[in-house]
Amino acid sequence: MRKNNLEILQQKIGYVFDDKELLVCAMTHKSCKSAYNNERLEFLGDAVVDLIVGEYLFLRFPNFQEGKLSKIRAAFVNEEGLAKFAKAIGLPECIRLSSAEDANGGRQKLSILADAFEALIGAIFLESGLKQAQAILNRLIQEFYGNINFEEMITDFKTALQEVTQARFALIPEYVLLAQEGPDHQKSFEVAVWIGGKEYARGVGKSKKQAQQECAKLAYLQLEKEGE
Amino acid sequence: MRKNNLEILQQKIGYVFDDKELLVCAMTHKSCKSAYNNERLEFLGDAVVDLIVGEYLFLRFPNFQEGKLSKIRAAFVNEEGLAKFAKAIGLPECIRLSSAEDANGGRQKLSILADAFEALIGAIFLESGLKQAQAILNRLIQEFYGNINFEEMITDFKTALQEVTQARFALIPEYVLLAQEGPDHQKSFEVAVWIGGKEYARGVGKSKKQAQQECAKLAYLQLEKEGE
Repeated sequence: MRKNNLEILQQKIGYVFDDKELLVCAMTHKSCKSAYNNERLEFLGDAVVDLIVGEYLFLRFPNFQEGKLSKIRAAFVNEEGLAKFAKAIGLPECIRLSSAEDANGGRQKLSILADAFEALIGAIFLESGLKQAQAILNRLIQEFYGNINFEEMITDFKTALQEVTQARFALIPEYVLLAQEGPDHQKSFEVAVWIGGKEYARGVGKSKKQAQQECAKLAYLQLEKEGE
Repeated sequence: MRKNNLEILQQKIGYVFDDKELLVCAMTHKSCKSAYNNERLEFLGDAVVDLIVGEYLFLRFPNFQEGKLSKIRAAFVNEEGLAKFAKAIGLPECIRLSSAEDANGGRQKLSILADAFEALIGAIFLESGLKQAQAILNRLIQEFYGNINFEEMITDFKTALQEVTQARFALIPEYVLLAQEGPDHQKSFEVAVWIGGKEYARGVGKSKKQAQQECAKLAYLQLEKEGE
């Protein structure tokens, strides 16, 4: 069963490991208590991912300053972004966890998925070098971020919204938590933003902050439209 | 004059740039207000350095866990460590600064040297790839750190000393600032450590913290000896 999943993973990334044990090591979470786990490969892979994404952005945006490049990279080399890649290549089915961690939903935890994804990239780098790791990661980046609006990705909409409401109404937006659901590792929050006694928008997110950003964005875009 | 310095630098690193403008860009501090500076190359080089040093440590210490590898890397990829490399290859003489920054001692500032060194590595990576950057940086690492005791490098001697004095004398060490000299960018501190009314050691450093660590280390090694 597991062997099959590893074959699917290798097919999805278009790379077949010579050293099968290296692949298994990259997929082994520390909860396993085996002789090896993926923490060292994650250390290596983390730097590989930073460099590949850094070079991608450096070349794609020849006019962006360093601060902007750093912000964009941070926005997609976070747990959420890397876990997205991990899911796209069928990595959750390949991770080796202790049965306790597995029962605890570990196979879907963003941090575990992100770490294993970094370990996988680290393992490819170790076996076949940067170019190979780069080809695989750049294909995923292109797939997920090829058409994204990077300006929007790094805008802090809460700050932007407050600037608009202060200038236009001399008011500060208020955020109201409407709902909070789900188990610890998969929480969901719903937040509404009120401006001067009126609800402007609602947003859902995996954290309060994310839900606030989401509704701030909707309210901001609406105010922008009204202001035109 | 400057051209000569750039030639010396290239000789010292054993690499000659095809694209001389790329080298000049890497050496250009933002104070210059020219059309380009080294900030983008530094963004790239920072990730290149992290990966090269990370791989070096990964391979050199097959039994070190991720946490230890991270600590050691942080201890030599900091401003001080990178500035040391910069000085060794004659980089201070190559940096292009505004005359104000130059008069202000900028050519010796650790942050400016470290950034320019990262930019230089980024430029080599961009022109010739990872292997080339790796060959140059690994030679410098070997030269400076080939024989170093890495365990000692990451030991926090203040904590270690306090553990010993508490266990042995039920006392906590006291640190006394003896002197503080030099201009802002080149300060020097001298600190003494006292244990139970007796001075045990003195240490000098570029910050209070560094001077404290230095004298804590001396006192710790002395107490270790006495305890044998």
